[in-house]
Amino acid sequence: MRLAVIPGDGIGPEVVAEGLKVLREVAPDVETTPYDLGAARWQRTGELLPDTVLDELRQHDAILLGAIGDPGVPSGILERGLLLRLRFELDHHVNLRPARLYDGVRSPLAEPGEIDMLCIREGTEGLYAGNGGVVRRDTPQEIATEVSLNTAFGVERVVRYAFERAVARPRRHLTLIHKTNVLTHAGSLWSRTVEEVAAEFPEVTVAYQHVDAASMFFITDPGRYDVIVTDNLFGDIVTDVAAAVTGGIGMAASGNLDTSGTHPSMFEPVHGSAPDIAGRGVADPTATVLSVGLLLEHLGRADQAKKVNAAVAFDLSTRGGQDTLRTQEVGDRLAALTSG
Amino acid sequence: MRLAVIPGDGIGPEVVAEGLKVLREVAPDVETTPYDLGAARWQRTGELLPDTVLDELRQHDAILLGAIGDPGVPSGILERGLLLRLRFELDHHVNLRPARLYDGVRSPLAEPGEIDMLCIREGTEGLYAGNGGVVRRDTPQEIATEVSLNTAFGVERVVRYAFERAVARPRRHLTLIHKTNVLTHAGSLWSRTVEEVAAEFPEVTVAYQHVDAASMFFITDPGRYDVIVTDNLFGDIVTDVAAAVTGGIGMAASGNLDTSGTHPSMFEPVHGSAPDIAGRGVADPTATVLSVGLLLEHLGRADQAKKVNAAVAFDLSTRGGQDTLRTQEVGDRLAALTSG
Ligand SMILES: CC(C)[C@H](C(=O)O)[C@@H](O)C(=O)O
Ligand SMILES: CC(C)[C@H](C(=O)O)[C@@H](O)C(=O)O
Repeated sequence: MRLAVIPGDGIGPEVVAEGLKVLREVAPDVETTPYDLGAARWQRTGELLPDTVLDELRQHDAILLGAIGDPGVPSGILERGLLLRLRFELDHHVNLRPARLYDGVRSPLAEPGEIDMLCIREGTEGLYAGNGGVVRRDTPQEIATEVSLNTAFGVERVVRYAFERAVARPRRHLTLIHKTNVLTHAGSLWSRTVEEVAAEFPEVTVAYQHVDAASMFFITDPGRYDVIVTDNLFGDIVTDVAAAVTGGIGMAASGNLDTSGTHPSMFEPVHGSAPDIAGRGVADPTATVLSVGLLLEHLGRADQAKKVNAAVAFDLSTRGGQDTLRTQEVGDRLAALTSG
Repeated sequence: MRLAVIPGDGIGPEVVAEGLKVLREVAPDVETTPYDLGAARWQRTGELLPDTVLDELRQHDAILLGAIGDPGVPSGILERGLLLRLRFELDHHVNLRPARLYDGVRSPLAEPGEIDMLCIREGTEGLYAGNGGVVRRDTPQEIATEVSLNTAFGVERVVRYAFERAVARPRRHLTLIHKTNVLTHAGSLWSRTVEEVAAEFPEVTVAYQHVDAASMFFITDPGRYDVIVTDNLFGDIVTDVAAAVTGGIGMAASGNLDTSGTHPSMFEPVHGSAPDIAGRGVADPTATVLSVGLLLEHLGRADQAKKVNAAVAFDLSTRGGQDTLRTQEVGDRLAALTSG
């Protein structure tokens, strides 16, 4: 397995080190190549994602990313030039975000119940297409636009993937989240596509919810959800709500998938670079280790993925509400558990 | 006070009756004119909002709306043709949504703390402008777009209103919620506008948060928020998150304001028509009564508004976790409390 590794900024390198520790334990054949991308490189050289680096990344089976971002970099530069560019160049049309409340993890909800959702967010369209503009900037007549682009091609492939995942889960339930009553054009495309693909998956029950209602039910009744499919921006928001109710983004793993296998998929914890705690060895690497689990699963290494996930589940259930963990300790413990 | 009343569908008429009961108690000078608008009228006559009705509505000091919607009406028809049309025609550019956790109300959060936010959502621009389209519908080449329109004029007036509200509150804190790192054009307009208006309000401290992060912090640390200002779609979502953590949309009041006073402002509970419980006399009219409070405040009747709000606060704090309330009972109790 040839793995490209982008440790990135802030706590990125710290959590990635532990992720790799665990990965090497279960998959000794992994060969890693580190790539220096992120705020530091941009500040030093002005480079975000040189084409030669992108070409090299393409030669790998997968990518593991820590975190990108630094308060010293103006907003939007690293996002558009690096993070989103990777998603678009590598056609990461499925943004996979499981949200499961593990035993031993404290939810902010009083009665969370069992939560086990798989959020599937479109990754290459919608309002993320970068299709906007401005006229008469800095005048009282300024107009700024942002355009959400939705294609039958793009919607169909992510919806189909969501049904494939739903049919393989015990509850076989899928919820489309959108705002079809206001965004009538895009909403209609999404609804019709779900309806069409649903006909091929008669075992899957289908529900629809407006994004505002869903954001509420994620809090008041999260247990009702199984697989979620939604667009890029709604997915950005509701997956953070899902992360919040399942213990925070310290637990939230993600995969950016090209399901066609043409390009390497990329796996990353959802949390950011957290510059405030960087370098202190206190960042929780759990989300990165769970992202390694998603990576293994994606590469068809189901047994190895299971080992990693079981180790995390066991570790969380035995932490006993400990809040001050050392990054390396968690990594060591998870590595020991996976080797067993 | 000439008040236009749109009871609407489902539980709308039931909760509006109680809202008016309370209103008449504190403001005996109110003259109401009912307007039959909503799903029932559309199903009967095909009419949504006839121009003559709109003209009549304009002749009032304010509008009280119950709820609009019925599962028998295709999604989007009542929203675009009635609810949103009212907002656009009457220039309701400020959508006011307080979210306060009252004593005696159960939050789904384990440790909610004190929550008292005032969400101010833009109401006449953004993705709600109805500016989208579709080509090659029902083919594999279909493309559907939705355009978010943001103008300096529109953003400035809602941001200014938010600062005016913030400076009058004890904490004097304002948070802009957007997604400036992805929606760079609209985001830049919003950020620059907040920065500019902030210079006129040096007493107000200002924060910025991405909508995904904010949706999380609304759950993990809602007490940190005071006044929120955000765009139309983000506001739709985060105000429902705010409603969820403060006890649900059964409590959530809203005002659609034309702050210039040219057109009547409209007040409505955030909950929908809830057809499943309609006609059973069990809908909670509290959100409607709180909307009446917002209405009185908007019309400069601060003392009357205070009476209504105090009655609700007292009633909630003494309900003692009772879950099965009769709509009329609550109205009677609140009317009695306000008359005192
Ligand atoms: C950093 C940002 C561009 C990104 C997004 O909006 O997708 C992040 O919030 C995420 O969810 O991965
Ligand atoms: C019914 C719908 C058009 C409306 C909106 O999206 O604004 C509702 O959700 C609200 O928040 O008032």
